[in-house]
Amino acid sequence: MRYFKPINSNIDFKKIKLQPEGEVIIRKLSDMVDMYQNQEAIKETLKENPIIYKFYNVKIPEDKGHLQHCISIVYPGKIGGEYYMTKGHFHKIKDTAEIYLTLKGRGKLVMQTPDNECKILEMKEGSISYIPPYWAHRTINIGKEPLIFFGVYRGDAGHNYGIIEKKVWL
Amino acid sequence: MRYFKPINSNIDFKKIKLQPEGEVIIRKLSDMVDMYQNQEAIKETLKENPIIYKFYNVKIPEDKGHLQHCISIVYPGKIGGEYYMTKGHFHKIKDTAEIYLTLKGRGKLVMQTPDNECKILEMKEGSISYIPPYWAHRTINIGKEPLIFFGVYRGDAGHNYGIIEKKVWL
Repeated sequence: MRYFKPINSNIDFKKIKLQPEGEVIIRKLSDMVDMYQNQEAIKETLKENPIIYKFYNVKIPEDKGHLQHCISIVYPGKIGGEYYMTKGHFHKIKDTAEIYLTLKGRGKLVMQTPDNECKILEMKEGSISYIPPYWAHRTINIGKEPLIFFGVYRGDAGHNYGIIEKKVWL
Repeated sequence: MRYFKPINSNIDFKKIKLQPEGEVIIRKLSDMVDMYQNQEAIKETLKENPIIYKFYNVKIPEDKGHLQHCISIVYPGKIGGEYYMTKGHFHKIKDTAEIYLTLKGRGKLVMQTPDNECKILEMKEGSISYIPPYWAHRTINIGKEPLIFFGVYRGDAGHNYGIIEKKVWL
């Protein structure tokens, strides 16, 4: 039998960098204009089109026995009165969990069930936040430094952004 | 529908403590005498019966949509010529992975497939070690400080120590 080989990635806690980088996914304001309320601030900020967040994804098979894992960085800043945040997502396989270990910064982890139950957890250095199956989740940087966290989810969980993009949260 | 509620645990990176503690599992030398070679050193060290390692387990349903997670601490030391190490285990559901993020200390992560293929990864602050499905795994503290790491695995994966207790590794 051929086994998938063990691999190491390394996060430099000071330089906020994953080695090897894996797949780097960057979200700029232009990728998420519908998620902020203040149209004028969006228009103004789009001239610079800042990176809102990015994540480094280790390349792992999309299979239920595997575990996807990534380092996410949400930058500090505001669009109008709203903090920089991630798009937020359900998993394609909805009954799968996710875990965030916060390495640096200060944030809020906003979660919602399909029945619109809400829950917000604090994110700070050393927080281990458990996002149980079914909860959609979004992270918000409420500090002045980058919010950096390590995330783990089941290999086949997948992402569903569509519902959240169209829905007003909270 | 009733959803499992999101929860936060917190690891103090300086004090090496999880809050809330969850379930604390302690392994003393007397729990693992068959794993070291030097019978005389074992007999001598059993007088004090030191804690070799312990882990703080967050209480999560044992279900395939969930993710178990824990903080493990392997203390520094030797029994005869051998470093303190964990018992090591396969998962009961063998085709499930595990991830270790090393927070402090220096170690070796020793892995083996059912076909006796071996692989060793370094553990140091910021190492993200991916243990793919099927690989048995054991951690060894090779430093002078506690080796501390955050581990995540599928909710229903379970542990199988028996095979490794009876088998000479490497």
